[in-house]
Amino acid sequence: MLLSKYPLDGRGALYEQLARVLKRAIVDGHFHPGERLPATRALAETLNLSRNTVMTAYEILRAEQLTTSHERSGTQVADISLPPGFTSPPAAVPPQSRYAARLRRLGSNTLGRLRDGLRYDLHCDPPFDLDMVRSWSRKLAAASRVAGPQYPDSQGFPPLRVAIAEYLARRRGVMCSESDVLIVGGTQQAISIAARAVVDEGDTVVIEDPHYLFLMQSLTAHGARVVSVRTDESGMVTGELARHRARLICVSPSDQFPSGAVMSLERRVELLDIAARQGSWILEDDYNSEFHFRERPLAALRSLDFSGRVIYVGTFSKTLFPSLRLGFIVCPPGIRDDLCRAKRFDDLGSPTVEQAALAAFMRSRQFEKYLRQTVGELEHRRAVLMSSLRRHCGERIVVQETHAGTHLVIWLQTVRYPQLTRLIELGVGRSLGLYPIHFYYRNPPERPGLILGYAALSAEALDRAGALLAQCLNDLEDEGRGRR
Amino acid sequence: MLLSKYPLDGRGALYEQLARVLKRAIVDGHFHPGERLPATRALAETLNLSRNTVMTAYEILRAEQLTTSHERSGTQVADISLPPGFTSPPAAVPPQSRYAARLRRLGSNTLGRLRDGLRYDLHCDPPFDLDMVRSWSRKLAAASRVAGPQYPDSQGFPPLRVAIAEYLARRRGVMCSESDVLIVGGTQQAISIAARAVVDEGDTVVIEDPHYLFLMQSLTAHGARVVSVRTDESGMVTGELARHRARLICVSPSDQFPSGAVMSLERRVELLDIAARQGSWILEDDYNSEFHFRERPLAALRSLDFSGRVIYVGTFSKTLFPSLRLGFIVCPPGIRDDLCRAKRFDDLGSPTVEQAALAAFMRSRQFEKYLRQTVGELEHRRAVLMSSLRRHCGERIVVQETHAGTHLVIWLQTVRYPQLTRLIELGVGRSLGLYPIHFYYRNPPERPGLILGYAALSAEALDRAGALLAQCLNDLEDEGRGRR
Repeated sequence: MLLSKYPLDGRGALYEQLARVLKRAIVDGHFHPGERLPATRALAETLNLSRNTVMTAYEILRAEQLTTSHERSGTQVADISLPPGFTSPPAAVPPQSRYAARLRRLGSNTLGRLRDGLRYDLHCDPPFDLDMVRSWSRKLAAASRVAGPQYPDSQGFPPLRVAIAEYLARRRGVMCSESDVLIVGGTQQAISIAARAVVDEGDTVVIEDPHYLFLMQSLTAHGARVVSVRTDESGMVTGELARHRARLICVSPSDQFPSGAVMSLERRVELLDIAARQGSWILEDDYNSEFHFRERPLAALRSLDFSGRVIYVGTFSKTLFPSLRLGFIVCPPGIRDDLCRAKRFDDLGSPTVEQAALAAFMRSRQFEKYLRQTVGELEHRRAVLMSSLRRHCGERIVVQETHAGTHLVIWLQTVRYPQLTRLIELGVGRSLGLYPIHFYYRNPPERPGLILGYAALSAEALDRAGALLAQCLNDLEDEGRGRR
Repeated sequence: MLLSKYPLDGRGALYEQLARVLKRAIVDGHFHPGERLPATRALAETLNLSRNTVMTAYEILRAEQLTTSHERSGTQVADISLPPGFTSPPAAVPPQSRYAARLRRLGSNTLGRLRDGLRYDLHCDPPFDLDMVRSWSRKLAAASRVAGPQYPDSQGFPPLRVAIAEYLARRRGVMCSESDVLIVGGTQQAISIAARAVVDEGDTVVIEDPHYLFLMQSLTAHGARVVSVRTDESGMVTGELARHRARLICVSPSDQFPSGAVMSLERRVELLDIAARQGSWILEDDYNSEFHFRERPLAALRSLDFSGRVIYVGTFSKTLFPSLRLGFIVCPPGIRDDLCRAKRFDDLGSPTVEQAALAAFMRSRQFEKYLRQTVGELEHRRAVLMSSLRRHCGERIVVQETHAGTHLVIWLQTVRYPQLTRLIELGVGRSLGLYPIHFYYRNPPERPGLILGYAALSAEALDRAGALLAQCLNDLEDEGRGRR
């Protein structure tokens, strides 16, 4: 009878399950305050459990103060007066925040992989090298023995901040001291922290079109009025900025995502000038600057900022691997303390061990050696894919010229938007993963395009992928003719 | 002349330093658009640098598009038109958010250690065991080889969520599925995420008095109207809740911080009832429930919540160590998706390796074995400190009765607030670290008290600490008499 109303839930030991059953029964008023519970032997027989199980469950109830036990009167339900309707579900869930309401309005528009196991999946993945992982694993084990158990420095492990400041001076033209560097859990946390420090609900934030979707979504959730300006082959079209008077301008000058455009020097200067005149902050997302195939990439926008308005953001998700969750902000002096505190109140600081391992990895120069090798390998894979695309797809596609990154953008000359879904289906049928680019746009381009990630596939697979895409385009044309 | 106006900054290679000098000179207008830079040989002689250094610096300028080079006319400054006043510092830093303004008003009230190297430092540190660290280090190395490089599941590594759900059912009476568990970077991030999901600027949030300072500060920074209600030996005085009509009530029922009070069952029921009638969310901070010296601690408040309003928060900062930065939320079903998305937009998820290591640590039951040993050791240290305090300080102190935790609270019967600073100085003089408790109160108690952390000191050191405190109290009395 008891168990038919309150069944055992199958979690943990039997005595724990029984204790929960009895507890629920007491709280529900099935047993009343002061009432004697059945004798352990009797209950054990009724329920077909061992007497020990029942005794241990009773012990738990006593320890949790739901019962009292006396030598002569056995186990009694404690004198707790539960308000009427205590266990009924609430009439209404308590109200939530405007933030939560905005989250819900966002929908769940995340761009995942089409499906697992596609042999030629051109999903945008970062490069990955097994030797690096092994070397990283050794660094991590060593770091875990020396990192110390204490709460971390919430601004970041000091030797890592030193290593990053040196690295940035050498490779990105960014001059900063280690006290300007704030370690965060990747670009996403950098955005979240920067938004808190400079953007109020209702403030205007400019992003590029196309853009990194999580950037747009997290700024929208934060409450910003997010507007986008166009990009072309010289990056963000700065001429469109003036009419927005943004509190914050988010830009990825060294490798616009996902178009791959590099912002020209003229545009950089114009951006800095407009921001100064309008009183805007700039968030420079330098997520991918290392994977550049020219002898030396343009220095960071931050290197031209002598006014302290560029919040420079870097990440190790692309240069090492995303599950690491480490990135950094180079803070403008005027808001350094605010950014550091926002991080402290967000999570007290990132875990120490990874930071210590990364500091060692950078100090030993293995990091830069790995980057050099990776850039060489990426350039090779990119050349193979481009050559295969040109050979097999010919004039049916236009490859966008870029000099950086881990993916190519191509524009489809023979496909219209309504046919895209079918093209992707045809790809899946040939184990080829294709991803349209218009999802990254607010104002989709006239022609459909694809974003082809090549960092995680071998040269052989990439060569084959170009041929497969051509076959899919053929199939689509055949189907079109057949239908007429 | 060039270098006296723009000195080399000493960071990185000479050619990089020289490139930065020239860049600044170009951006400043020291060289004009179209102007020829000095010939490399001439500049090298003038600056007393090698010609190679100058040539490499010129290469960098060319790569960064600041110059053009032609076979016959040498290196020319590019035709970039810089707006007037481009490099002058800004008239005013751009405006910031209300969040930043609140951060600044908070001041920098963090309670650090008095100083490093005190031999008997009674600062509140978690317990720490070298064998555990070694075992953890092995788990971490193993995890780093299997954890995978991809972006983490932003809700948390699934096997860890399973391990936590099982553990909570067994040890805390909390029934939940792994899909209710959200992995976060410790209690602080849990607070930050929960606040975003349910609290708007200006909403009332109730905390306990005394309280964890970062809780109060981060809620204040978030924009909540933070009010506090008293606690007594049965925990939060729930009778004071009605007049606040809070959106969120934050409570640490299993071990009130820092008083050590355990919330009685009556109060728990009353809290849940008031929250249901007022439409409040409850944040249950169960940070320390494992370090209980009774046979079984009270089950979590969450185990009595059948209405889905308790946001249960746990952490591994105390049970393992704080530099790990891992904790979790058991989400009420109604806001599970909101909390998970708030975490995703905050940092895309916690690092995978630590989560995988922790999952293995919990599955192997080493975690619970370690907890059992630690509880035994803590109970021993606590007994030693209490006995020493009673023996040496006698009636000059009152020890607060508690059954849990890693620190004791004592009330000083012979010391008035104005004398506390001197008492602490006397302590430092004897290498004894003493920490007053009133910093944790909004409404400080009548008598001054101390919070004595014993988890990180040996039994011998704790025995000595009691005697040293008595000597400090003696000294203080002597000084008082001497002054009269």
